Amino acid sequence: MQMIRDFSFKLKSTEKKARRGEVTTAHGNIQTPAFMPVGTAATVKAMKFSDVKNSGAEIILGNTYHLMLRPTAELISDLGGLHKFMNWDKPILTDSGGFQVMSLSKIRKISDAGVEFSSHLDGSKHFVSPERSIEIQHLLGSDITMIFDECVQFPATFEQAKDAMDRSLLWAQRSKNAFKKRDGYGIFGIVQGSTFKDLREISASKLIEIGFDGYALGGLAVGEGQEEMFAVLDYAPDLLPQDKPRYLMGVGKPSDIVGAVLRGIDMFDCVMPTRSGRTGQAFTRLGAMNIRNAKYKTDEKPLDEKCKCYACKNHSRAYLHHLDKAQEMLAPMLLSEHNIFYYQDLMKDIRTAIEEGKFEEFARGFFAEKEE
Amino acid sequence: MQMIRDFSFKLKSTEKKARRGEVTTAHGNIQTPAFMPVGTAATVKAMKFSDVKNSGAEIILGNTYHLMLRPTAELISDLGGLHKFMNWDKPILTDSGGFQVMSLSKIRKISDAGVEFSSHLDGSKHFVSPERSIEIQHLLGSDITMIFDECVQFPATFEQAKDAMDRSLLWAQRSKNAFKKRDGYGIFGIVQGSTFKDLREISASKLIEIGFDGYALGGLAVGEGQEEMFAVLDYAPDLLPQDKPRYLMGVGKPSDIVGAVLRGIDMFDCVMPTRSGRTGQAFTRLGAMNIRNAKYKTDEKPLDEKCKCYACKNHSRAYLHHLDKAQEMLAPMLLSEHNIFYYQDLMKDIRTAIEEGKFEEFARGFFAEKEE
Repeated sequence: MQMIRDFSFKLKSTEKKARRGEVTTAHGNIQTPAFMPVGTAATVKAMKFSDVKNSGAEIILGNTYHLMLRPTAELISDLGGLHKFMNWDKPILTDSGGFQVMSLSKIRKISDAGVEFSSHLDGSKHFVSPERSIEIQHLLGSDITMIFDECVQFPATFEQAKDAMDRSLLWAQRSKNAFKKRDGYGIFGIVQGSTFKDLREISASKLIEIGFDGYALGGLAVGEGQEEMFAVLDYAPDLLPQDKPRYLMGVGKPSDIVGAVLRGIDMFDCVMPTRSGRTGQAFTRLGAMNIRNAKYKTDEKPLDEKCKCYACKNHSRAYLHHLDKAQEMLAPMLLSEHNIFYYQDLMKDIRTAIEEGKFEEFARGFFAEKEE
Repeated sequence: MQMIRDFSFKLKSTEKKARRGEVTTAHGNIQTPAFMPVGTAATVKAMKFSDVKNSGAEIILGNTYHLMLRPTAELISDLGGLHKFMNWDKPILTDSGGFQVMSLSKIRKISDAGVEFSSHLDGSKHFVSPERSIEIQHLLGSDITMIFDECVQFPATFEQAKDAMDRSLLWAQRSKNAFKKRDGYGIFGIVQGSTFKDLREISASKLIEIGFDGYALGGLAVGEGQEEMFAVLDYAPDLLPQDKPRYLMGVGKPSDIVGAVLRGIDMFDCVMPTRSGRTGQAFTRLGAMNIRNAKYKTDEKPLDEKCKCYACKNHSRAYLHHLDKAQEMLAPMLLSEHNIFYYQDLMKDIRTAIEEGKFEEFARGFFAEKEE
């Protein structure tokens, strides 16, 4: 039995702009700053959910675009919702499909009504409006629904960024209207405006007027680079309410996360740990490693001696190097799991550091030591 | 610390020709009849070793041919042997490379000296003799070494089968001579002779003269079909000593195994459970299932309600169907693990049935019910 509870955010402590908080949802609490593993097609790639849970992850992300195409939101709803379908009983955040529609599908027409596109899987025609996106996320049973928005590519001109932002605000209001409020379920707005401060300010203030349970920063980590992203993060989180969670979408490398927490971000998601795990990349306390490198061929050490993941407790770099070279499935399995563990350990360390008022020091050490 | 013990076989009970036994090796005991998951390239494909162990498997098979090419037997030896390299502390049987050299590589020359061939990986030239095969298996640290033999294709003429058998007998003696006897480590002979009873009789009696710790039947499950294979198994196991384990190489489907145990076989290996798991096939108590079948799209039942594997305890057929359709790695992971669990459960049931004198009854039920 699930306890019903309000969707809420509690700020537990702060260190300058960095925030230590807790989000409460229908499926449990999330300690922030939090990293959400990406479970695109109802699976965190190459991992069992028991291992996702063991890593310390308290929430994962599902993709509206992928799931609406396959197996369809209606099927998942018929089978009891996304939690039951994939057997994950902790919180789920779903993106709205906006970003994937723009980046993966063949767009046929964008208008204020919505987006008409062809599936990247089979070319079939689909239409998503803000109302339909919210309906899909409701069918999936997402704890955190994201508004449907229009994402512009980077770089964008001021005009392009403004047009997309204006339409996104229109869609934000319609998303909010379409959202069925239930105890423990929330909806987040998404601040757009590319790298233009004027636009970010307008976007944030209008979204706050509409009123959401949390606010995301969209349109970052799209190729602008860390410096440019941090420049936006130097002011954008300050545009948002203190008492709501702040989510930086699609970010990022470990150093991106540390830098963003320093600037007031609470939530993150990124395919990087799992995608990298499928191409021989490991994130460790010593920096990023490419297990394909010939120097690991006879290296009997684990990936990361301080890591408690299955791979680090059981296998050597030499073995992982061999598995990767032989293109054995166990290589992406072990590396993905290790990377997700590393990310969750990083978030734990960040949370502890903020609680102890030592996060700035932690961040300084982090930027000094890591080679990525 | 590993206890040193003699390599031995104890026959615990029998029911007609069916045998319930125990093999003792340097790395522990193996209850027979036993099924050995195949760990070709130092990994049972798509499975963590912790899950292989959880399935009840007490021994796995490694491939001399694959490991000599990559990462090389010398490297594995330098890193402490195959047990340590892949972190599997139970027994390992290695094949001699004979079968893979014939089926995978490009043969350049076969003579009494050995086989010269090109690697299927990079075309590099290699030479394997009986002495080299045994040396490789020693470097790997195999608990059960197999003699190097020449396998003929099926169908073979009597002459072809006889030539290969004669050479295999020559190589059997040289393999035995090259084998370094250590406590707890054994070497098995391989009876050849295709489907010719005369040849099987000669092969068996000559091998027994040389003297081995166990005897395998080679050259079966190579396309002759179950009926023809059972025809050979109706007499071939009787050619072998009662007090040594009997291993049917490369077999097989669940019904092959049940039928072979009925005829006096103790040990099996086959890629079927893991290979099938990578192509959507599940073995269950209700028969074989193809999870790709559209009827599973909305099926909320587990693969097999009596199975205790992770997939059956956590996921529905509908979810597995979706994963397979979306080509997600979790599909082969879960199906491979389920299949290995199914095979180990089958062996457990077979062992219990023999102990209770109910194996013939079990086998009758098995052949009546199963659709494969």
